[in-house]
Amino acid sequence: EAEARDRQDGAYFHSYSDVSIHEEMIADSARTGCYRRALQQGYWGRGAARPGPQPGAGVGLLQGRTVLDVGAGTGILSVFCAQAGAARVYAAEASVVMAERAREVFEANGLSGRISVLRGRVEEARLPERVDAIVSEWMGYGLMYESMLRSVLHARDHWLKPGGLLFPCQAELFIAPVNDPALQERLSFWAGVKEQHGVDMACMAAFARRCLMNDEMAVGALHGEDVLARPSMFATINLYTVTEQQLGRLGGLFTTSSFGIATMHAFAIWFSVIFPTSARSDSASDNHATTSTVDGRQASRHKDDGQFETSTNSDSRRASTAFASSVPSAYTVNPTASSHCTVTANGGNLQTFNRCADSHVAFDANADECEPVVLSTSPFAEETHWKQSLLYLDEPVQVFQDTVIKGKITLTPAEDNPRHLRVALIYEIGDSGKQTKIFKMGEDFSSYD
Amino acid sequence: EAEARDRQDGAYFHSYSDVSIHEEMIADSARTGCYRRALQQGYWGRGAARPGPQPGAGVGLLQGRTVLDVGAGTGILSVFCAQAGAARVYAAEASVVMAERAREVFEANGLSGRISVLRGRVEEARLPERVDAIVSEWMGYGLMYESMLRSVLHARDHWLKPGGLLFPCQAELFIAPVNDPALQERLSFWAGVKEQHGVDMACMAAFARRCLMNDEMAVGALHGEDVLARPSMFATINLYTVTEQQLGRLGGLFTTSSFGIATMHAFAIWFSVIFPTSARSDSASDNHATTSTVDGRQASRHKDDGQFETSTNSDSRRASTAFASSVPSAYTVNPTASSHCTVTANGGNLQTFNRCADSHVAFDANADECEPVVLSTSPFAEETHWKQSLLYLDEPVQVFQDTVIKGKITLTPAEDNPRHLRVALIYEIGDSGKQTKIFKMGEDFSSYD
Repeated sequence: EAEARDRQDGAYFHSYSDVSIHEEMIADSARTGCYRRALQQGYWGRGAARPGPQPGAGVGLLQGRTVLDVGAGTGILSVFCAQAGAARVYAAEASVVMAERAREVFEANGLSGRISVLRGRVEEARLPERVDAIVSEWMGYGLMYESMLRSVLHARDHWLKPGGLLFPCQAELFIAPVNDPALQERLSFWAGVKEQHGVDMACMAAFARRCLMNDEMAVGALHGEDVLARPSMFATINLYTVTEQQLGRLGGLFTTSSFGIATMHAFAIWFSVIFPTSARSDSASDNHATTSTVDGRQASRHKDDGQFETSTNSDSRRASTAFASSVPSAYTVNPTASSHCTVTANGGNLQTFNRCADSHVAFDANADECEPVVLSTSPFAEETHWKQSLLYLDEPVQVFQDTVIKGKITLTPAEDNPRHLRVALIYEIGDSGKQTKIFKMGEDFSSYD
Repeated sequence: EAEARDRQDGAYFHSYSDVSIHEEMIADSARTGCYRRALQQGYWGRGAARPGPQPGAGVGLLQGRTVLDVGAGTGILSVFCAQAGAARVYAAEASVVMAERAREVFEANGLSGRISVLRGRVEEARLPERVDAIVSEWMGYGLMYESMLRSVLHARDHWLKPGGLLFPCQAELFIAPVNDPALQERLSFWAGVKEQHGVDMACMAAFARRCLMNDEMAVGALHGEDVLARPSMFATINLYTVTEQQLGRLGGLFTTSSFGIATMHAFAIWFSVIFPTSARSDSASDNHATTSTVDGRQASRHKDDGQFETSTNSDSRRASTAFASSVPSAYTVNPTASSHCTVTANGGNLQTFNRCADSHVAFDANADECEPVVLSTSPFAEETHWKQSLLYLDEPVQVFQDTVIKGKITLTPAEDNPRHLRVALIYEIGDSGKQTKIFKMGEDFSSYD
C-alpha cells in the first residue's frame, strides 16, 4: 500500500518535472494574476496602475510575515510573497528538478536571502518555525484531481501558527447543465462525410456518441451561453477547518431549471477559490465553516454568473428533500449548503470573505482594506487552464423552459489511486426518472502530456 | 517474445477502437481525397467537376477487379473501391469494434453484397482467392511509426496476384533543416514573465530548451517558409519489391545548404506516397526498385517544393563521399538514391509513376490515362494530420547563406516495441563538426490520446 502510494507520488511529482505544465500555469494569467493580487494586496497602492510599492500605499498583508509555499514549482508564488515584504518564505517542492529551478529563480530575483528551498515532500519537511501564512496552488481538474490538497492540510496542521492565513482559504464547487458545441460538432461530423467524400457514414454517429459521451470526466472550455440553467454550488470547503477525512467524500445536492429549449449534453463542474483579505471578522455569527443563507431569498452579486439577480430556494429545498432519501447519512462536507444550493456566488459575497478571513489572525490593522480576490473557473469568467470539467450524459437530451434538473453529485478519490477522481452522479431531467452515472478521471487522462 | 508482440498488437488495435482517430483521418481531406482520386481514377470523367460515373467517363482502374483493404477501419477505402466498380472487396480489420462499424457502413451504402469484412489480423486471414489490388493506409508519423506496413507486405506476398497493384505503390522520405516558430515562441515565453507578472524568470529558458529540444521525435505543423534549405529525399521504398528485412533499416545520406540567415531548431522529416496509374511501363530501364537520376542535372517539377527548378548533385555527391566512411556496409534500402539525394520529387515525376505501375499488370488498356496521384505530407503541401516529424537539435543554431548541412539518418524499429520508432541522426552544420543524436517515438507519444 505504502509502496504503491510512493510509486504514484513519484509519477505525480515527475509529471511536474517538465517545463510544459509550468508554462501553462504561468501563462494562465487569470490564475497567476489572482495569486499575485491576493498575495500582494495592500502592498499595491490603492488604485495604482501598476503593482509594486507606491507612494501612499499601505503595508502589505504579508509584510514582515513568514510564509510556507506548498508545491512551489518554479517558485513564482514564493517570489510574490517576498516581493510583498514577507520576512521569510519556505518554498517546499518535491520535484528535485523543479526545486533547482526555483532556487535559480530566487537567485535571479535577488531573493535568495529571504526564500529557502525545502526539497522534498512537505509532509517530511522540518521548518525551523511555524509560519504566519501558507500559500499553495493545489487545485486540479474538477478541483480535487491530483489530491494535492491533502499535503496543504498536513502543512496547515503542522506548520501554520494558530490564526495563520491560508491562500486560498476557501473553495466552492459548482454544477450546471450545459450544451457542448464542440461535442455537437464532432457528433455531427459523420453526417457530413457523404457530402465531402461521397460515402454515407451517418451510421457512425451512434458509435461516436458512445465513444465521446463516455464515463471519463472530460475537460473542455465552455462559455456562458453554453450554460443551460442557473449553476448550483454543491459544496464549499473551508480550508481552515476541513479534515482529510471530509475531503474523502465531497458533494451535495443540486436543483435548477432550464432557461429555455436547448440540447443538454453534460453537467459541467467548476470551482472558485477565495483568498483571505485583511478585513477582520466583525460578526461572531459568521464564524462557521458552513455556508448559510440569510433567508429564503438571497442577493447574488456575482460578476461571473451575473445574469441572475435573485432567486428563491424553495424549489431547491423541495428537490433536496425528495432526493434526501437516497443520501448516505455520513454525507459531507457541507450538508447545509448542499440542501440549500442557492449560493452560487463566485465573487462579491462579502460575508464569504469575512468568514474566510475570520480566523482570529492578529494581522496588521493598518493594512489596506482590500477587495476580495476570487479565482473563478466558471464558464462566465475568463478562461483558465482548468477550463471546465464535463460529465457527459449517455446521449443528448432536449430540455425546455423550466425543465427541472436536479440530482446529487459526489466526488471521491479513486480506489486504485487516491490522486485520481471518481464522480458519482445521480440526476433527473424533467420527468426522465432517476439516472445514475459513475465517472472517473485517471490514468487515461492526459491533458498535461 | 510472441506474447509481448501480441500484447503490443492488442494495445495497437485497441487504440483504433475509439472514434477520435477515425474522425481525424477522415476529416483529413488531403489524405482521404487522395485515396479517393487514386482508387476512382478513370471512373471519374476527365475534367468532371464531381466524381462518380460521368457521361463519357472511362472504365475505372478497379472496374471488375478484386481488392483487399488492409486495416479497413471505418471501411471508407473499401467503399471507394466498390464505388469504382470493384467486383469484390475484402475489408480486413483487426479491431472487433471497427470491423462491426465497417459492416454498418457497407450496409448503409448498399455495398454489403460486394464487400466482405474479414475480422482479425490480416496475417491470419484466409481469402478465397488472390486479389488484383491491395489498398491500405498504413502510414504512421515519420512514415514508419506503427509499422503497419509489415502487414501490408505480408498481404502482398500471400494474396496479391502476380502483377497486381498496390495503393500506394511507393513511398519517399524527405529531410530538411527547419525553423520552428511554435518552439521559438515557447522558448521566448520565459523572458516575458517579468513584464507580465513582475518576476524575472528568464533563467527558465535554459530548462525549457532542455525539456523541449529533447530526444523524442515530435510532431508539429510547419509551413514552407520554415524550411531553411532544399529538402533531400533520403529514402524511397518500392512497395512491390521491398522486404520486411529492408524496412528494418531505412535511411540515407543527405546534404543541402541553407538559403540564408536563420535560426535552425530541428530537422523535419516527412513523406510522400505515390499511387499507381493506369499507365503501363513503356521502358524496361524503369523496371528497377531503386531511384536513379538521368544525369548530374535533373529537372524537379515538384508542386510542393516548387521553388527549386533544377539542381546539380555534384555537391551532394562530394558530401556523400565524405560521409561514406561512417556508413555501415549493410546500408539499405536505397544506397543509390541515398548517395545522390537529389530527387526530392513529391509530385509530377512521371518516371516514378511509370516505374510504380510497372508491375506487369494486365490492367485495362481502355482505362483513362490518369494524372498521377501523390499524397504529400510536405510543409509545402496542404496540411495533413501527419503534419511533420521534428528531430530537435540540442539548442538553436544560427545558419547563414550557403551553410552546408549534411548528414545521415537511419530509421529502425525500437528494440522494445517494433511498432515504435528509433531515429539515428548524424549531422554536420557548417563547420560545427559531426554530431550524433538518437531519437525515439514511443509510449510517451500520445498525439492520438
